[in-house]
Amino acid sequence: MTVAARVGMIGAGQLARMSLAPATALGIELHLLAEADSDSAAQVAGRVTIGDHRRPDDLRAFAKGVDVVTFDHELVAPGHLDALAGEGHVLRPAPASKRFAQDKLHQRERLGALGLPIPAFTTVTEVPDVECFAEANGWPVVVKATSGGYDGRGVWVLESRADVVASWPQLAAAGALLVEAFVPIERELAVLVARRPGGQAVAYPVTETVQSHGICRELLAPAPVAGACATEATALGLRIAEIVDVAGVLAVELFETAGGLIVNELACRPHNSGHWTIEGAATSQFANHLRAVLDWPLGSTAPMAEAAATVNLLGPSDGSDPLDRLPAALAVEGVSVHLYGKAARPGRKLGHVTALGNDLADARARARCAAGLLTGEETT
Amino acid sequence: MTVAARVGMIGAGQLARMSLAPATALGIELHLLAEADSDSAAQVAGRVTIGDHRRPDDLRAFAKGVDVVTFDHELVAPGHLDALAGEGHVLRPAPASKRFAQDKLHQRERLGALGLPIPAFTTVTEVPDVECFAEANGWPVVVKATSGGYDGRGVWVLESRADVVASWPQLAAAGALLVEAFVPIERELAVLVARRPGGQAVAYPVTETVQSHGICRELLAPAPVAGACATEATALGLRIAEIVDVAGVLAVELFETAGGLIVNELACRPHNSGHWTIEGAATSQFANHLRAVLDWPLGSTAPMAEAAATVNLLGPSDGSDPLDRLPAALAVEGVSVHLYGKAARPGRKLGHVTALGNDLADARARARCAAGLLTGEETT
Repeated sequence: MTVAARVGMIGAGQLARMSLAPATALGIELHLLAEADSDSAAQVAGRVTIGDHRRPDDLRAFAKGVDVVTFDHELVAPGHLDALAGEGHVLRPAPASKRFAQDKLHQRERLGALGLPIPAFTTVTEVPDVECFAEANGWPVVVKATSGGYDGRGVWVLESRADVVASWPQLAAAGALLVEAFVPIERELAVLVARRPGGQAVAYPVTETVQSHGICRELLAPAPVAGACATEATALGLRIAEIVDVAGVLAVELFETAGGLIVNELACRPHNSGHWTIEGAATSQFANHLRAVLDWPLGSTAPMAEAAATVNLLGPSDGSDPLDRLPAALAVEGVSVHLYGKAARPGRKLGHVTALGNDLADARARARCAAGLLTGEETT
Repeated sequence: MTVAARVGMIGAGQLARMSLAPATALGIELHLLAEADSDSAAQVAGRVTIGDHRRPDDLRAFAKGVDVVTFDHELVAPGHLDALAGEGHVLRPAPASKRFAQDKLHQRERLGALGLPIPAFTTVTEVPDVECFAEANGWPVVVKATSGGYDGRGVWVLESRADVVASWPQLAAAGALLVEAFVPIERELAVLVARRPGGQAVAYPVTETVQSHGICRELLAPAPVAGACATEATALGLRIAEIVDVAGVLAVELFETAGGLIVNELACRPHNSGHWTIEGAATSQFANHLRAVLDWPLGSTAPMAEAAATVNLLGPSDGSDPLDRLPAALAVEGVSVHLYGKAARPGRKLGHVTALGNDLADARARARCAAGLLTGEETT
């Protein structure tokens, strides 16, 4: 035997790509189910199956070749997940855990029933439903598709009845909807938890996620928040990991508000908010996800420096490719560049840059400097 | 373009395997020339050509597909390297640099002529040559094959004329030989330098390499030596990198003796003595090798902790496979395990374990503990 275990990951995006290094180090054979050879991770992985995660036969054939099935995304239909699990394949996280990330209504109902901090919400099917909710909770309101949204897609902030009416055709096309009270946010935070099937769990230092137009632009870790806030966020993350009964990494996105923390979204997989852990933590989120889904002891989440800052590289608006400016960015002292092998398109996440330091401002400045050299744009 | 550069590495052992992660992060397409699909790196790499580095046609076809050719080992015949370079392929390091690692006589002659510290040496072709050298320099003597040796192979310590006579058939079969004065060693050190074609160079903190029977067992970084010794070793490493005119990583193995530092061997590639840099330095030797051969700015070699210790995993004498004991080892706090995907055989290098810490003794104890759990043997 020259392989410690065979893990199958459905999806071959950048999360799968960044999972390859720890898999290799740990002697794990990581198989990928990719849509195309050109997928971010498929370009560089040794074991790639081209297939469609919407086709049960493709999923089944893929699952047969591995010990454990896990995920790079939230897109596999719940029915397909149930079928795979029903046939005896080991899915980690399990379909019931995955549902918390795939179905926002389910997440709100379950967390709300347990008294966890979430915004007021209800389901809506018609314009008057939204209006009625707004009358009770005030404008603006947030309408969300219950499934399928990411990076700001599937989420609409609506200011008035006229806004709802004008947007309704687009909203209705997104499938089942829920409406939530608009929460005035002071800061967005994320807690990453890695958890084994038996329940052993570790949390990473709380991360601030700096967002713009629904897309995460920067990560600051540890988040520059009061100690009590960090403690509360961590406790919330660990509690939710238990409720979700996750096996693997769970990302809990939080709003810090004047009234305390509120749960935003969940993701049952390694997450953009944890990219700083590659250099910034003793064990990266990608390594701990693999360890967790294999039910192996989890690694230390201790930070490697006082502060870590990550800046996401979005495709420049002039359509140019950051790859062409890579050497200039590497001249910035003490930054780590991660490129995802994706064709440059304006606004597309093409990679990220991480800097560690004794001071958050210094780390952030260096990461921004390198990211700015890569994109040719001011990073703000 | 979704690829920043295409690097071809001849050889697909563990050095190539550990080069994959930084190549992926930096958007470098790393092609490997492997002997078999089962080679350490070929198991997990996306772009593998099966071929024979002893066949000029295989080398030529491989070189055509990449921007720069580099190496996982020292085994390509100098004539083949010259031919490739003559045909216009970019080889980094260049054949003339590689010769310092491939031809021990050349190394001794060139470094000796420049006044660098090397042991007394001469070439030998017959038993009396050795005897004559020993009469002048004392017993024991060290006989070495001028090329092809590694991990203690191709090196013989001989105590007496009777020893030489008894060993001669084996020695003579190893090809051209040289004899050197035996140097009483206090400690073995290694200096790793990464250098760009233009001459920009960075050195890593000096590493102590703890050897047993010619095989490196442990790395301690920074080496627990006096500051003046570390300064001298670093200066020697940088000077030799310039003499060798290396492009890429150069490892300079040194003996610390009562009379000062003496140069032992050179390796023109990432090296076992630098494995601690994956976790222990801001930029690993593997990342800096790729950056150097592409003539990109080099990364910081600053240490990530006060101390790093690496313990090599050698195949247990009972033939068992450390993979079977991996989860137990992962339970040791704060260690990073790297497995090479190689079938277990007694004494074979199967992987390594690195621990960082505030204190060398503590880091070493944790790395040894995890390594001991993996091998099921006491690590001393």
